[in-house]
Amino acid sequence: MMLRTHECGTLTKAHVGETVTLNGWVQRRRDLGGVLFIDLRDRSGIMQIVFNPEFSGEAHAIADKVRSEYVLAVKGTVIERSPDTYNPNLPTGEIEMRVTDIEVLSSAKTPPFFIEDGIDIDESIRLKYRYLDLRRPEMQQTLMLRSKAAKIFRDYLDEHGFIDVETPILTKSTPEGARDYLVPSRVHPGEFFALPQSPQIFKQLLMVGGIERYYQIARCFRDEDLRADRQPEFTQVDIETSFLSQEQLHELMEELMVRLFKETIGVDIPRPFQKLTYKDAIDKYGSDKPDLRFGLELVELSDLLANSGVKVFANVIANGGQVKALNAKGCGTWSRKEIDDLLPFAARYGAKGLAWIQVKEGEMRGPIVKFFTEEELQAVKDRVGAEEGDLILFSADKPKVVADVLGNLRLKIGRELGLIDDSVYKFAWVVDFPLLGYDEEAKRYVAEHHPFTRPREEDVALFDTDPGKIRAQAYDLVLNGYEVGGGSMRIYQREVQEKMFKALGFTMEEAHEQFGFLLNAFEYGTPPHGGMAFGFDRLIMLLAGRTNLRETIAFPKTQSASDLMVDAPSEVSAKQLEELSVRVAVQKPAEPKS
Amino acid sequence: MMLRTHECGTLTKAHVGETVTLNGWVQRRRDLGGVLFIDLRDRSGIMQIVFNPEFSGEAHAIADKVRSEYVLAVKGTVIERSPDTYNPNLPTGEIEMRVTDIEVLSSAKTPPFFIEDGIDIDESIRLKYRYLDLRRPEMQQTLMLRSKAAKIFRDYLDEHGFIDVETPILTKSTPEGARDYLVPSRVHPGEFFALPQSPQIFKQLLMVGGIERYYQIARCFRDEDLRADRQPEFTQVDIETSFLSQEQLHELMEELMVRLFKETIGVDIPRPFQKLTYKDAIDKYGSDKPDLRFGLELVELSDLLANSGVKVFANVIANGGQVKALNAKGCGTWSRKEIDDLLPFAARYGAKGLAWIQVKEGEMRGPIVKFFTEEELQAVKDRVGAEEGDLILFSADKPKVVADVLGNLRLKIGRELGLIDDSVYKFAWVVDFPLLGYDEEAKRYVAEHHPFTRPREEDVALFDTDPGKIRAQAYDLVLNGYEVGGGSMRIYQREVQEKMFKALGFTMEEAHEQFGFLLNAFEYGTPPHGGMAFGFDRLIMLLAGRTNLRETIAFPKTQSASDLMVDAPSEVSAKQLEELSVRVAVQKPAEPKS
Repeated sequence: MMLRTHECGTLTKAHVGETVTLNGWVQRRRDLGGVLFIDLRDRSGIMQIVFNPEFSGEAHAIADKVRSEYVLAVKGTVIERSPDTYNPNLPTGEIEMRVTDIEVLSSAKTPPFFIEDGIDIDESIRLKYRYLDLRRPEMQQTLMLRSKAAKIFRDYLDEHGFIDVETPILTKSTPEGARDYLVPSRVHPGEFFALPQSPQIFKQLLMVGGIERYYQIARCFRDEDLRADRQPEFTQVDIETSFLSQEQLHELMEELMVRLFKETIGVDIPRPFQKLTYKDAIDKYGSDKPDLRFGLELVELSDLLANSGVKVFANVIANGGQVKALNAKGCGTWSRKEIDDLLPFAARYGAKGLAWIQVKEGEMRGPIVKFFTEEELQAVKDRVGAEEGDLILFSADKPKVVADVLGNLRLKIGRELGLIDDSVYKFAWVVDFPLLGYDEEAKRYVAEHHPFTRPREEDVALFDTDPGKIRAQAYDLVLNGYEVGGGSMRIYQREVQEKMFKALGFTMEEAHEQFGFLLNAFEYGTPPHGGMAFGFDRLIMLLAGRTNLRETIAFPKTQSASDLMVDAPSEVSAKQLEELSVRVAVQKPAEPKS
Repeated sequence: MMLRTHECGTLTKAHVGETVTLNGWVQRRRDLGGVLFIDLRDRSGIMQIVFNPEFSGEAHAIADKVRSEYVLAVKGTVIERSPDTYNPNLPTGEIEMRVTDIEVLSSAKTPPFFIEDGIDIDESIRLKYRYLDLRRPEMQQTLMLRSKAAKIFRDYLDEHGFIDVETPILTKSTPEGARDYLVPSRVHPGEFFALPQSPQIFKQLLMVGGIERYYQIARCFRDEDLRADRQPEFTQVDIETSFLSQEQLHELMEELMVRLFKETIGVDIPRPFQKLTYKDAIDKYGSDKPDLRFGLELVELSDLLANSGVKVFANVIANGGQVKALNAKGCGTWSRKEIDDLLPFAARYGAKGLAWIQVKEGEMRGPIVKFFTEEELQAVKDRVGAEEGDLILFSADKPKVVADVLGNLRLKIGRELGLIDDSVYKFAWVVDFPLLGYDEEAKRYVAEHHPFTRPREEDVALFDTDPGKIRAQAYDLVLNGYEVGGGSMRIYQREVQEKMFKALGFTMEEAHEQFGFLLNAFEYGTPPHGGMAFGFDRLIMLLAGRTNLRETIAFPKTQSASDLMVDAPSEVSAKQLEELSVRVAVQKPAEPKS
């Protein structure tokens, strides 16, 4: 075959007069009065190549038979186009190639969709023919961005003394966390490996092993019910350090993010990042991953309305709930219907109703106004800073429901009011997560992060008095409403670990049954350590300006955890199962895949 | 805690007089007349710290209680040692630290083995306590070497336009190749994912997808019976390219190896690498992965001995076998017993006997000499270049047995004679592997590499006449007797693919049943492509001068595919299995792990 001397998209006017050979795919072919124009495409771009019976000889006849997506090798001379045929949409738009030799490397059936950006086609078709979908420039650019981002992470971490260590994929099922993917062992019948939900345990063991600074771009697996933004296998940049404070770790990671955004999309991220306690995040934004590109903060009203004539409010507060409001600036002109349309949205997050007051023509208006005293109305107005043309939305419920309802209304209204600038990237650390949550069903505390998360030093005494109040040295990194990373400092002192297990209702013996090898390891000299993990797929999604994780993964799975291209999962042979000492016990026929 | 200002191994005389804080593990502690000396170890090295009641105050009393592997934070002043106490074995051997403050970060039980290099301890203990084993400098250095090597691969491939693409771990079981690890699907009862034996199919699909240059440091899985140099999960550097010739690909890869060896162990590898056909490798060295650091080549004698009076030789040759010999230079002085001791070794490779002739005191001696004619003896002597003091070893059998027996004798004798220089790294390409092998049991041809391997252009006509003679565009990269990489150029022309499947005894319909999505993909414009994969674990083993793959992996599995540290595989709960719609069908109790 004629091997290429250049890539299509790299030719410029400087090459005029040169004889070059190109290899690539036929993007399109036009016949203008017997002269054939082909847009030849490779990874670098597109070059127009011209076949004219006058100078192309036999090549012209061969070119006459090629179709879209044929693979060609062509040889010829680069010439300048006449200025009236310049194509300003192409970097190579001022030149073309006069072909003298052609070789059809392979032919192509008509593809099921056009190989071009912005196609509007069912995603399942794109996934089934992913190898064609990947030819589209936007997919190629996303994969190149992903590769580049991985390189930036690695270069930075390498420069800062982190060692890239691979941890096992075939490992042990752990009792806590999400559902494991299991792998039957042939050598040990009846026993199973599990695929790791994260390298958490191994990275802590590496710290016990004196590695001090570890990273890995690691594949992780969770057999969960899949939402739009989850994949059964996903990638995280996994990091762990010894002998660093939380502040030192955060500084290192901030610098890393700054470099990542600068070197991929050219955006300058200011440092230091905002720090926000978990409590403040929930109080002000109703979310532990607030979008900080706009204000529209939640306002606490419980103190004002505890004795209000609005009985529904007063009752909620009396029962330990709260009343909060959002001032939707400028929405005071919304029609009754527009406001009522918010209710189904709010109901998705647990709202049983949606009280509201408009400030219109100098008056506070709305169905609930009549239950307020004049003083209460004025106090609410002052507190939320309501002015003419504003809409106050109330939520009265348990704190979690109030946060969810108003937090999501905040996002929806913020978007609708155009308060969100998509060119802005607002990072923040959310810190001081609670160490323990109370499980009402199990009637015991459970670890919010994991049982090795270190409490804040000044809160350790609370183990004996009020464990629910203990703040953890746990943190998330949030960006524009997404959690892009998270982690914690870990317990390294035996006495603190014992208090932790006691709070979780375990004796040390029971803890050993569950976490034996890790607790054993901790007995041989554990360095103070901590780390975090970045959700790599989601970071790429945000960098690429996409809204779907599947767009960032070369061969993703559908929401029902199947690969439509290779048809996986699939049935296997009886012999394979026999060798593995397992049998299928299907209660119902397999459902059709989607 | 007192955070470190410096790392132990980085302090020098330039720091004398400075107050520094160190964090690390107690390597050892000595009490010399009330003055305590502790070797404090971190990843960077060791620093001697001194506690004297005079200047250490309370810290001295605390230090008196610390033991090996405690984790400490210490603060103090760097001073120069008196010259008579210099330790030339330590980079920090001319300085020490006078400690004024100490914090015991965590205590440690007595470890099951000393944390130092060169320990002689059962490997299963090291694997069970891998987190302690990893503290040993030689393990840390190997992991750092591995991390650095990965970085060199990535940097080089990135510079040369390769895109790092992650391919799925949860994928489809394929009918050919080694045994798959399977993963039951919860969402699709009765169906299974398979873990990939390599990303082969995906990398070819990426070429169809126009990625042009792909790489990935990929985890691969094979559920095979494990030999000393295999792991159930292993790592390969996986590479695929479009629009390149085999020669261009090899040049790129040679440059990569040169850089890898220079930048990790400082060794200059000359280029270009030797190229050796598969046929020559087998003929001369009895191996397709010859150790080229020494000669001791195999010599063909079949033509000389076809009509020999040595009936056993003549008969083998008459039945399609061959007779070859090895001239073990200087072994003519070996005793009968020393020679006989070679037989059990040779028998491991299929030898039924081991004929030999010594050249001693001007005579050809040995039990078989009497069956030779004088002319035959002289011809053999001349052909093998035997001189006084040499030992000629014969093998007469099927060509495969002859190659195995003499190839392995060559290695053994080469090593025993000290012909192998361990400081030399001899790379070579073994090329022109056969495309097809004949499966005597199945009575059909099978693909030696895989069914998409491209034949040499000039051999395509042999599909119709003598398929067994077709040479493939397949190659291995060998180094010092190990295969460190291998790959092939792939078929991209439909008519060649059809010939290949026909030779394998498949109709295109049957081929579609097995390789459907890949063959479908090939119909939409396939670029000429090819690639290779490097065995990353093995390369690291060679770079680190080790002989066991487990030494190169942070958390390896044993030969019976278990992880002794986390105790995997292990039993799982009935609920987990029920959710996955599988049942255990154990025919025999699980065997004890080793």
